[in-house]
Amino acid sequence: MTQAQIPAMMKAAVMHELRQITIEEVPVPEIGPNEVLIRVMAVGICGSDLHYYDHGRIGSYVVDGPFVLGHECAGEIAAVGAEVAKFKVGDRVAIEPGVTCGTCEMCKAGRYNLCPKVEFLATPPYDGAFVQYLKMRADFVFPIPDHLSYEEAALVEPFSVGIHAASRSKLQPGSSLAIMGMGPVGLMAVAAAKAYGASTIIATDLEPLRLEAARKMGATHVINVLEQDVVGAIKSITGGAGVDTAWETAGNPQALQSALSSLRRGGKMAIVGLPAQADIPLNIPFIADNEVDIYGIFRYANTYPKGIEFLSSGQIDASVLVTDKFPLAQTYEALERALNYKSECLKVVVYPNGLL
Amino acid sequence: MTQAQIPAMMKAAVMHELRQITIEEVPVPEIGPNEVLIRVMAVGICGSDLHYYDHGRIGSYVVDGPFVLGHECAGEIAAVGAEVAKFKVGDRVAIEPGVTCGTCEMCKAGRYNLCPKVEFLATPPYDGAFVQYLKMRADFVFPIPDHLSYEEAALVEPFSVGIHAASRSKLQPGSSLAIMGMGPVGLMAVAAAKAYGASTIIATDLEPLRLEAARKMGATHVINVLEQDVVGAIKSITGGAGVDTAWETAGNPQALQSALSSLRRGGKMAIVGLPAQADIPLNIPFIADNEVDIYGIFRYANTYPKGIEFLSSGQIDASVLVTDKFPLAQTYEALERALNYKSECLKVVVYPNGLL
Amino acid sequence: MTQAQIPAMMKAAVMHELRQITIEEVPVPEIGPNEVLIRVMAVGICGSDLHYYDHGRIGSYVVDGPFVLGHECAGEIAAVGAEVAKFKVGDRVAIEPGVTCGTCEMCKAGRYNLCPKVEFLATPPYDGAFVQYLKMRADFVFPIPDHLSYEEAALVEPFSVGIHAASRSKLQPGSSLAIMGMGPVGLMAVAAAKAYGASTIIATDLEPLRLEAARKMGATHVINVLEQDVVGAIKSITGGAGVDTAWETAGNPQALQSALSSLRRGGKMAIVGLPAQADIPLNIPFIADNEVDIYGIFRYANTYPKGIEFLSSGQIDASVLVTDKFPLAQTYEALERALNYKSECLKVVVYPNGLL
Amino acid sequence: MTQAQIPAMMKAAVMHELRQITIEEVPVPEIGPNEVLIRVMAVGICGSDLHYYDHGRIGSYVVDGPFVLGHECAGEIAAVGAEVAKFKVGDRVAIEPGVTCGTCEMCKAGRYNLCPKVEFLATPPYDGAFVQYLKMRADFVFPIPDHLSYEEAALVEPFSVGIHAASRSKLQPGSSLAIMGMGPVGLMAVAAAKAYGASTIIATDLEPLRLEAARKMGATHVINVLEQDVVGAIKSITGGAGVDTAWETAGNPQALQSALSSLRRGGKMAIVGLPAQADIPLNIPFIADNEVDIYGIFRYANTYPKGIEFLSSGQIDASVLVTDKFPLAQTYEALERALNYKSECLKVVVYPNGLL
Repeated sequence: MTQAQIPAMMKAAVMHELRQITIEEVPVPEIGPNEVLIRVMAVGICGSDLHYYDHGRIGSYVVDGPFVLGHECAGEIAAVGAEVAKFKVGDRVAIEPGVTCGTCEMCKAGRYNLCPKVEFLATPPYDGAFVQYLKMRADFVFPIPDHLSYEEAALVEPFSVGIHAASRSKLQPGSSLAIMGMGPVGLMAVAAAKAYGASTIIATDLEPLRLEAARKMGATHVINVLEQDVVGAIKSITGGAGVDTAWETAGNPQALQSALSSLRRGGKMAIVGLPAQADIPLNIPFIADNEVDIYGIFRYANTYPKGIEFLSSGQIDASVLVTDKFPLAQTYEALERALNYKSECLKVVVYPNGLL
Repeated sequence: MTQAQIPAMMKAAVMHELRQITIEEVPVPEIGPNEVLIRVMAVGICGSDLHYYDHGRIGSYVVDGPFVLGHECAGEIAAVGAEVAKFKVGDRVAIEPGVTCGTCEMCKAGRYNLCPKVEFLATPPYDGAFVQYLKMRADFVFPIPDHLSYEEAALVEPFSVGIHAASRSKLQPGSSLAIMGMGPVGLMAVAAAKAYGASTIIATDLEPLRLEAARKMGATHVINVLEQDVVGAIKSITGGAGVDTAWETAGNPQALQSALSSLRRGGKMAIVGLPAQADIPLNIPFIADNEVDIYGIFRYANTYPKGIEFLSSGQIDASVLVTDKFPLAQTYEALERALNYKSECLKVVVYPNGLL
Repeated sequence: MTQAQIPAMMKAAVMHELRQITIEEVPVPEIGPNEVLIRVMAVGICGSDLHYYDHGRIGSYVVDGPFVLGHECAGEIAAVGAEVAKFKVGDRVAIEPGVTCGTCEMCKAGRYNLCPKVEFLATPPYDGAFVQYLKMRADFVFPIPDHLSYEEAALVEPFSVGIHAASRSKLQPGSSLAIMGMGPVGLMAVAAAKAYGASTIIATDLEPLRLEAARKMGATHVINVLEQDVVGAIKSITGGAGVDTAWETAGNPQALQSALSSLRRGGKMAIVGLPAQADIPLNIPFIADNEVDIYGIFRYANTYPKGIEFLSSGQIDASVLVTDKFPLAQTYEALERALNYKSECLKVVVYPNGLL
Repeated sequence: MTQAQIPAMMKAAVMHELRQITIEEVPVPEIGPNEVLIRVMAVGICGSDLHYYDHGRIGSYVVDGPFVLGHECAGEIAAVGAEVAKFKVGDRVAIEPGVTCGTCEMCKAGRYNLCPKVEFLATPPYDGAFVQYLKMRADFVFPIPDHLSYEEAALVEPFSVGIHAASRSKLQPGSSLAIMGMGPVGLMAVAAAKAYGASTIIATDLEPLRLEAARKMGATHVINVLEQDVVGAIKSITGGAGVDTAWETAGNPQALQSALSSLRRGGKMAIVGLPAQADIPLNIPFIADNEVDIYGIFRYANTYPKGIEFLSSGQIDASVLVTDKFPLAQTYEALERALNYKSECLKVVVYPNGLL
């Protein structure tokens, strides 16, 4: 393939109204000198996509006008900007979806996920990846090896959240960890915990499908919250002590409280999931008396090379998460499937340039 | 003074009933080979002393039978155990009041404040320091220079809480900090923040006496919570950004919520104060979106040499906190004064071997 | 087995002269209330044992009079002190060989390996483990699961050095690492690197036997220093960048210089091996310009539970290191074998209570 | 002042040959949308300026053709790029002299001082600040308060090196520190140590003028290396233990060895100075046995706001370092003075727009 083969127009799946998607012809974007054009091969559907699709907003981010969803994506380099040396046409790549300014205090301190000027795919007003071609600043594009599938490369995005949680909460090799909620973020967090060498990985959820997937991703123990007392079960698994670390990924208030209560003295908790209701009561004397550390988690930074390395090593088979596949023309069906059949789906993937 | 001058009996201020103190003759304790006997010269009254005095319990710690209060103390070495090389009779010392096992996992990891076997002065079943002579394991006793008063040396205990909060919350030189609550712990936390080089130290309280003391201890700004919107005032002081760090020392739910809301993106919060009510609603999306770190604080570890160094340097004059002085015979009056006149007292000090 | 079965006398392998070992009858030690008596089942021979055996000293530690070697050991609980609750007779255990004071500044800060009062097995004046029964303070004894062999449990000692190096040098999951020297410490360091999730583990040595063992322990690449330019080979493996981390375990000056030169910008180096000659020239502008971190490594702290966890998990088969086995009666032959056949032996093990 | 007053041409001090400077008329630079134009008010002469002036190269950086020296600078905003919101004409500013790419792995990780694409003032091929007007990317320009002089603002550059050393070597409040070499970097390092709350700051040099200045900057002890045994004196000051931290700033091999030897067990050393000879012998067993940490220091990152804050607070009077002042027309005299009268000068400052 050469750059000459890039068409002028491409197909995009556009949301004009809540829960309506139309496939439209739009211009293929033009790239700047530091950008690459990517032929998008796989896009996973994320909970935030579904929230915009169903409600039109997340907090202060409001969809206003036609909007393209999708931000967990991978593809093939289709064109390379004049100043980009590290890519050539045809390279297979994973895409980190948030482009940051590189000049603010947070960027310079290495916490670019807190950049106030970030332009994040499928976060208003920035369109997402349910398109055939996407332009991206080259430093947010990462090469992947041939043996890593595009679906797996797209999963580096939710995987990054788990890697970032592991890094922020100082997850130690040989330690014990409980992860609350086995949606795709929780499942990839299990994979992150395994990559970080945690010895005891306890996964909780209420869906058997997800708990089964958690085992495949590396959980050493699973707890169905409908069947067991979570804190009691965790204490039992850890010989009464509690876990070294706990991550809440579901945004469930009770799961958050369980995560806290399941900690051993000096334990650490990461808050990954966003609850619908802002204020959640937490046991403050427990936090103080036990010197708990709590870490808020917002997206990720500096995780992509590591995530690609982990998935490429063969220790983790993330492809087991892909339960449903749709071509771009059926993006509506893909979103409805993901929205309405949560107990049957893990990760629903859209293929803008044809099923793989 | 020689060891021969140690009497067989001494006076102790004993609590037999809530809010009753009797002065009794009790045997001077005998020391083991790794212990020292200390002639107690000054003992500060702490909020926990008042809580046992008024309610007979704190959480699961219940006063059962005669009990001696007091744990913020300093004195003079009166006798030295056979294996103790670092002290001689007459040395002036500060006393770290919690003796830990040195062999458990927490002790070995350097977090001995989380030792489950700690024996802490004036925490049931261990008696405290309202006595003329106290025995202590020598490694929890620290020499002080001649120019540091016994009252200041006793204040190393609450100072340690602030130093530990600074260490745990990674307080940075040149950074901005809000401290909620200007009781003695909050006031000494201001001193700790100053010693750690914080550039902007904002103190909040509702008592003018305490806010005035906060200024003396090093606060660059004070906020009277009855007069100002705390979060708004902090945002204003910090040019809209919020503070890098916030510590809650009062155990006040609203102060805790204000501390959280006053943080800048990527900010850090330490929870020092224990609220009466366990569950306090916290804004979870704020914690996650802003990647807040929250650190529970329980007592302190490895702070005494540093605390003595800071107070000895002359940069901090902690003696301004001592508002009331009583001999041991008036321990009851001292406790009643501290309990009932909180707006007039900062630190009430008892002198077991005579006023200084 | 009950405590009544403990004999009054036991066999010990005693060094009276350099390179002479006699088997003698000595009293079984009596234990204190916080100690346990251990029936020693396996003792690995370490390079420091060989150095005392051959030279009678290491630095300022001088063998003076009869001396018992051996400090990498595991066994079975034979008797339990009155205040020890966590063990019962018959428990299988690994032994951490250095008993520290628990009260000095270093112990309290969690760096007990720097305790100036440490009593370390087979470090003058403290005898070692080539005996049938050994007493030990219970907090330095750790339970092992039934499926972990005594030889592997003894290897937790050199493994601990690798774990400590990983912890001190902040080894990151997914990162690249070069380890110089594949003696037993280097080989177990490979295992530690694998447990910590390093993706690229490059091992160097000059003995094919050791490089082969390195592969078995988890090395992804091996370099024979007689055949390849080490720094060039490492640069090649890492795409020109250099490794994130390098550890020198052999005490070889050239290996240390290679370790430094093989680092990428911002890389980290741990110095584990002790060179015979103290002063080694290092490239200082390289250290400054590239902001290298260098970490000295002395023994280990807080590693045993983690080490036992890793070896028990089944991911690492440390038993491949055991190349030679001798009963206690042949301790002399064991030491001579280890001293004279370094290219044929990895770990030589002595069994004080009979071959297993 | 308005942008209209910017002249088309300006004066620059240009080096065509070693130790020759000519004052020339050159075009005032045009700024891009993210840049500002700065009227340069004060430029300090640094050792690296003198090295280029005297030798024409530093390592692999070679002066090739006409070259402008000077990188420690401050001035007044003269024009503002279209996309720059944070400055207006007339603002007083300090200038961080290295512009980094913001997109490489090092930049994204917060270690932008290791960016391989950095464009650093007065480092070939980038011209420096001995000019009347300088353009700079706005994110490397920082506002200073009115009461901070331009000379002091220029000193934020060497101050940054000390702040970075403090940060990298984890300098603790209340700790003891030895700083070897009291050139301007060493003197500003003393100021950094004071700002970080070090209690004992020991400065070494051989020039009385510098040791006297060290005292003014905050050193608690000074050692003249011609008169005292450095290591012995440091041990004596620290009660025999050695210092917690040592920084070498002079690039002197013997000073580096003294810095290492002066450390207590578990101590930390920063290497700031670059020796002329690359390979310096270091005591490796000392590093290992005492678990020394060594940190290479290369320039700085994220230090300017903090440095400005410290100098503005009034605790540090950096202006005592300015011993010599020259207008731009006498840049040659300034450089010769700094080169030839090291025992008389501390910081020589050039004023491109007239003496202040």
